[in-house]
Amino acid sequence: MLVTTSKGRVDMRAFWMSRGVVKAIEQRLLPDKFRIVSIRNYREMAEAISNMTIRGAPSIGAAAAYGMALAWLHGENLDKAAKIIKATRPTAHDLFYAVDLMLSKRDEDLVLVADAFADSIVDKCRKIGQNGSRLIKDGSRVLTHCNAGALATVDFGTALAPMRVAHRAGKKMFVYVDETRPRLQGAKLTAWELLNEGIDHAVISDNAAGHYMKDSVDLVIVGADRIARNGDFANKIGTYTKAVLAKENGVPFYVAAPISTFDMKIKDGKSIPIEERTEDEVLFVNECRVAPKGSKALNPAFDVTPAHYVKGFVTERGILKPAQIAESMRWAR
Amino acid sequence: MLVTTSKGRVDMRAFWMSRGVVKAIEQRLLPDKFRIVSIRNYREMAEAISNMTIRGAPSIGAAAAYGMALAWLHGENLDKAAKIIKATRPTAHDLFYAVDLMLSKRDEDLVLVADAFADSIVDKCRKIGQNGSRLIKDGSRVLTHCNAGALATVDFGTALAPMRVAHRAGKKMFVYVDETRPRLQGAKLTAWELLNEGIDHAVISDNAAGHYMKDSVDLVIVGADRIARNGDFANKIGTYTKAVLAKENGVPFYVAAPISTFDMKIKDGKSIPIEERTEDEVLFVNECRVAPKGSKALNPAFDVTPAHYVKGFVTERGILKPAQIAESMRWAR
Repeated sequence: MLVTTSKGRVDMRAFWMSRGVVKAIEQRLLPDKFRIVSIRNYREMAEAISNMTIRGAPSIGAAAAYGMALAWLHGENLDKAAKIIKATRPTAHDLFYAVDLMLSKRDEDLVLVADAFADSIVDKCRKIGQNGSRLIKDGSRVLTHCNAGALATVDFGTALAPMRVAHRAGKKMFVYVDETRPRLQGAKLTAWELLNEGIDHAVISDNAAGHYMKDSVDLVIVGADRIARNGDFANKIGTYTKAVLAKENGVPFYVAAPISTFDMKIKDGKSIPIEERTEDEVLFVNECRVAPKGSKALNPAFDVTPAHYVKGFVTERGILKPAQIAESMRWAR
Repeated sequence: MLVTTSKGRVDMRAFWMSRGVVKAIEQRLLPDKFRIVSIRNYREMAEAISNMTIRGAPSIGAAAAYGMALAWLHGENLDKAAKIIKATRPTAHDLFYAVDLMLSKRDEDLVLVADAFADSIVDKCRKIGQNGSRLIKDGSRVLTHCNAGALATVDFGTALAPMRVAHRAGKKMFVYVDETRPRLQGAKLTAWELLNEGIDHAVISDNAAGHYMKDSVDLVIVGADRIARNGDFANKIGTYTKAVLAKENGVPFYVAAPISTFDMKIKDGKSIPIEERTEDEVLFVNECRVAPKGSKALNPAFDVTPAHYVKGFVTERGILKPAQIAESMRWAR
C-alpha cells in the first residue's frame, strides 16, 4: 500500500519479517501517528494480535504464521506457541488455518513458509481486486464497513481491493466509509488508506448508512472474518445491519474474502463464535469517557449475516454465489 | 426528572424560567459535568438551541417559547425575535409551532404563556408514558435511539416516558441504549437519565443494534422531530436503520411524540427538511480527531422513516396507527 511518511511516499506492507524480527505498522495509532514497531518473539506477536496492533482476518492469519516462525527461530515449543497464539482472538478463521498450516510444516524453514504464506495472501488479494473491479462502474458510489484494506490483509485488501484496481484503471468512484464504532477502523484506517491512494471518499457515522442507502449507494462491499459452508458469515459488528439495509433498498451486497476465510467444518452461522470485547471500547472514545460512570455496555465485536443477504463472495477464484460455495471448495486450496 | 447533584437527589426540569432568566441544564457537558447555565435574552436562547445546550424536539419548542418570552420581557421586536429563533434548526416541527403560538398570543403575558406551554408539554409526556406503558411487560427488553427523555422534552420524555411509568409501576425491564453517533446522546444523555432513574440498561454501539434485534429486543421505542400527515417521520440519524432492522426481525417499532410533532401541512416525508450539521461532529469525538486530516465527512442530523415501519404512534391521545393520523388530528390540538 502507498504510505506517506516523513521520507515521502513509499509502498509497504502492514507488516513483514526482516532479520528475525517482525516489523509492523502500529495500527492503533493511525491515523494520528505513523509508527513501525518491532515484534521479537511469539509472545509479543500474540499480544500484538490481542491488542489489535495487527488486526483484520487475513492479517491475523499472516501474523499468526510469523508468530509461529518466531517460535521456530528461537527453538521454542511449537505446540505451546500454537496454543497461545490460537487463544488470542476467537472469530477469524484465518488464525486457526495459519497456525495449523505452520504446525503441519514444522520440518521446514518456518520463516520461509510464513513469508510464502503472507505473499500468497497478497497475491489472492490482488486477484480479488481484479475479480471484483468489474462490479465498480465509472461513477459508482460504494459503501464499505470497517477496514478490509491493506492493513487488514498484509497488503492490497479484500473489500478495498476492487476499489484499488478500479481506481488504478481510471474509474471515478466515491466511497462512503462507515466510521465503524466502537473502534472506528473505518474512520481511522479505511479513510487513511483511501486518502493515501487518492480515492474520493467521506466518513459517515454508522447511523447515516441507511440514509445514503436509500438513493445514493450503488453497491456495498465488506470483508469477512469467517464464512460458514452455507454462506452465513461473521464480520465486524454492524455488517448485518448494512446487509439488511442493502436488501431493503435493492442495493447489491458483496463480501470480499480469500478462500481461506471459508470454514467448511461449520455448517452455518450459528456455530461461529462471537468475540465479546471489553465494554470500555464503547464507554470510552480515544480515552474520553462518553457514558456516565455506573452505566455498563455490551460489546460484541462481530455479528453474523445470513447467506441470503449476499449477492456474491468475491474470491481469488471468482465471484461465488452462496449456493456455489460447497462445490467450489472441492477444487479450492 | 431525578438528578443526583452535589446537594443530593433532586427532581428538576431540563430548563425553567425564574425571575426573568431561563435556567437550563447544559446538556453538552453531560454526563461528565452537571452544570446549570443562565439564558438572559432571546439571542442567547437562539444560540443555546443552535449549539445544542438545549436539544430534543419538544424541548426546542419550549425553549423557543421561552426565547419569545424573554424578547417580550425586554420589549424587543417580536417578529425579529421569531425570525432569529426559527432560523436555529430546521427539522423539529415544535420550534415553528411554538414560535407561531407565541406570536398569536403577543397581547398576553408571554412569560405565563411560555410557562403554560412548557407545563402542557410535560403533561402530554406523562400521558404518553401512561398510554405507552402497557407496551412494556414485566421482563421486556426495549431498544431506544438517541435521547427522547426528560432532557429532550422539558421533563419526563417521550420514548423514555413509557419506561419511567412501567418502572415506577414495578415492572422489570432492560434497555438497550444506542450510543447514537455522531453526538452520542444515547450514551451521554439517555444512559444518564436511566441511571438516575434506576432503570437497568446497557449502552451499545449503533452497530450492535442489529445483533441484538435478532433475538433479544422485544420492542423499539423512539422519539420524533417531525411527523408528516401520512406517518412518515424524521428523527435522529440512524432511526430509519433501526426501523428496518425491527421490521426484518418482527420486532414492533413505536414512535412516541406529542400531537404537536405532527405537521399536517406536510403530505409525506419527502418534504421534511433534513439538517446537515458540521462534518466535525463525525471527524472528532470529544475534541479527539478520529479520521485523518484530509478526509471529509457527511453529517445529516436526521433521517426519514416511512410510515409503514411504524406499528404505532404513542401520543397523549392514545396509540395511533399511521392510517389514523389524519382523522385523529381533526379533534386534536
